[in-house]
Amino acid sequence: MQEIKDRIYKDGVVIGENILKVDSFINHQIDTKLLDDIGAYLASKFEGATKILTIETSGIAFGITVANHLGFLPLVFAKKSSSKVLDKSNVYQTIVYSYTKETTNIVSVDKRFLSKDDKVLIIDDFLAEGNACLGLIDLCRQAGAEIVGIGIVIEKGFQHGRQKILEQGIKLESAVIVESFKNGKPILK
Amino acid sequence: MQEIKDRIYKDGVVIGENILKVDSFINHQIDTKLLDDIGAYLASKFEGATKILTIETSGIAFGITVANHLGFLPLVFAKKSSSKVLDKSNVYQTIVYSYTKETTNIVSVDKRFLSKDDKVLIIDDFLAEGNACLGLIDLCRQAGAEIVGIGIVIEKGFQHGRQKILEQGIKLESAVIVESFKNGKPILK
Repeated sequence: MQEIKDRIYKDGVVIGENILKVDSFINHQIDTKLLDDIGAYLASKFEGATKILTIETSGIAFGITVANHLGFLPLVFAKKSSSKVLDKSNVYQTIVYSYTKETTNIVSVDKRFLSKDDKVLIIDDFLAEGNACLGLIDLCRQAGAEIVGIGIVIEKGFQHGRQKILEQGIKLESAVIVESFKNGKPILK
Repeated sequence: MQEIKDRIYKDGVVIGENILKVDSFINHQIDTKLLDDIGAYLASKFEGATKILTIETSGIAFGITVANHLGFLPLVFAKKSSSKVLDKSNVYQTIVYSYTKETTNIVSVDKRFLSKDDKVLIIDDFLAEGNACLGLIDLCRQAGAEIVGIGIVIEKGFQHGRQKILEQGIKLESAVIVESFKNGKPILK
């Protein structure tokens, strides 16, 4: 998607080997017009969803705008907790390790908000090793919900998230793919 | 605002003395049509804002929709951290105590995203004792930013947030005010 590529070339900051900092327009300050354009783009790639599922924190803004563009679908955001105690009585839970933050979180969705009647479109801002998405897939499967697909804003194409999601037989669309970094600049597809 | 009042009467759940649970449409599952209506309502109450400031997690969705209705204003969400270490070199920081969660967080905004040139509309989902809002006001004042006002989705009128904000000389608008609870039901204004 051209708008997000242009913006990353203009304002994205590469730190070290493989970190792309986009906090001036994606995940601390948000350019809400760009957000809306990305929402329209991702919404156009999927059909038949009845619910959007994302994960706090920075997935929420994108989940909302995709939901808006699909006719105001309900949005559920999975909650992260660093608690060590699993409590599966009222919630679906899974464990997600973040390579970026080097933290392990329990990720939960209340059982009232995910069911076998839902056709779920999963939305997140970043895809790298795919752990957050695999966690959300796990929550959908615990609930018996159908997964329509996964929509991502920025995919790191040199990591293994795409492969792991496609192995699950799930459709994946990304607004932009970072193929590599060269001389401190991202190469985008 | 009638839509949110109707929905709280229908789906809000009162727990104990003063907790109103709205997780089926506000802060875990989000009714994005209601969200959009609330965004339009709050946007209509303020003039002259150039930036929206909110706080993670559940303020983000409302901040986005208000920003959209004000012509796609940039949105900044303050980040919470339970870290005990203040680092004021690159960020504005303040300390916020949450009565509801009984936790203390350091709340930060990168200095690049808040400045004396900004006219800030602060948006949050709940107002009770006002601590989160007072923290956001403090961040704006550290940056020298002008505060246009504060827009809240659900205000607990029997707590002291409104009084504390008005004492600061800041305009406050809420989509709905919970005046009290009676026989396990909220009384709304």
